Amino acid sequence: VKTAAIVIVGDEILSGKVDDENARYLIGELRALGVRLGRIAVVPDEVDVIAETVHELASRFDWVFTSGGVGPTHDDLTVAGVARGLLRRVVRDPALEALLRAHFGADVPDAALRMADVPEGAERAAESELSWPVCVVDNVIVLPGVPEIFRRKFAAIRERFRDTPFVLRSVFLRADESRIAAALAEVAAEHPAVHIGSYPRTDERGAIVRVTLEGKDAGEVARATARVVAGAPPGSVERTD
Amino acid sequence: VKTAAIVIVGDEILSGKVDDENARYLIGELRALGVRLGRIAVVPDEVDVIAETVHELASRFDWVFTSGGVGPTHDDLTVAGVARGLLRRVVRDPALEALLRAHFGADVPDAALRMADVPEGAERAAESELSWPVCVVDNVIVLPGVPEIFRRKFAAIRERFRDTPFVLRSVFLRADESRIAAALAEVAAEHPAVHIGSYPRTDERGAIVRVTLEGKDAGEVARATARVVAGAPPGSVERTD
Repeated sequence: VKTAAIVIVGDEILSGKVDDENARYLIGELRALGVRLGRIAVVPDEVDVIAETVHELASRFDWVFTSGGVGPTHDDLTVAGVARGLLRRVVRDPALEALLRAHFGADVPDAALRMADVPEGAERAAESELSWPVCVVDNVIVLPGVPEIFRRKFAAIRERFRDTPFVLRSVFLRADESRIAAALAEVAAEHPAVHIGSYPRTDERGAIVRVTLEGKDAGEVARATARVVAGAPPGSVERTD
Repeated sequence: VKTAAIVIVGDEILSGKVDDENARYLIGELRALGVRLGRIAVVPDEVDVIAETVHELASRFDWVFTSGGVGPTHDDLTVAGVARGLLRRVVRDPALEALLRAHFGADVPDAALRMADVPEGAERAAESELSWPVCVVDNVIVLPGVPEIFRRKFAAIRERFRDTPFVLRSVFLRADESRIAAALAEVAAEHPAVHIGSYPRTDERGAIVRVTLEGKDAGEVARATARVVAGAPPGSVERTD
């Protein structure tokens, strides 16, 4: 199973000035691609925190996606943080510098040229399809915070992450969660390759629990689902999706 | 400045089955209370990961709020994770056990009684106002994942977190972000107690940047705001909020 983590860089999210849209979008995309998302971290605009977060997550997950902090201002610190987290220097990419000089002309501000700085060894991904490529360094994909651009850039490199799809089944049980817990724990122990979740809520008819079963092997998921149904309290199975 | 972190426990968020509502709610509440939110971590239903995350964040922030993973099933591991993260044992709270026995009656399932387990030394907060108290242990507040209950419980203890409110000003500049970056960096360096953010976007009239200035001292924020306005390119200030 391929795994991923998301690092959202931005005081604006933590302070509630801006609602996160990128983690939400990527959650759905990664799921559809068959990638297991294992962590989301929302961190402030601080180089040290970005660096330690990237360092830790890049060593634990197959892919790490960062969002935000890539502009020209003093609070744009993601490139420096990613570089430090991956123990690399920051260098100026000549191809990116040329793009900036073409855009800004003769009086290009120094601040703008900072956007050509990348961790040493970074790849310019999807260079031919995008007006500004995606920065990929080791297993870290550096994406911008503006949602429309974040999506366009992710879409341009999406296929490199595709893996075997997940199979998801749900069993809806009309029961108190406490009364099915022991049976669920047994099925979970017997089917370690199947991820079993239990989500209780209350509707007009009382307590109802959605039991989810998911994995990459459809046969395994089907067998675990059958075990949950067989072990449920008599008459409690409302439906199976 | 009081600081906080949020730990969202739940495979259902990471896999996209459920949209997070609790971090979003708490972001707004903490801001309104004058508490600086410094980190959000979304972690899977794994004791080790919960424990290390709580351990790290509880030592760095004044308050850590956890959401989810507190029910009776095998995937409810937050109490065990928080206990391990704070180097405490898990013990059964007799008052909580009594509440559960009163609710379930004579045939209370063992799984239900797990909900009476708490990290040793935990406080039962807001016990008189709520039908089920909030578990507070050291500086960690353990809240449930169901959004309505999460909100009701937080509201019952909200006032213990209130601090000096934040003062926020915004300056809207009709300019390319690169051309104001150097001036902003200067103001940021001169006013370390004021947090300065720069958020560019494009509207029908072209590039516009929202510069935010915030802090706890209104005079400091006003002085920094005046400096940003004075240092902006001639004619670029569209408005100040």
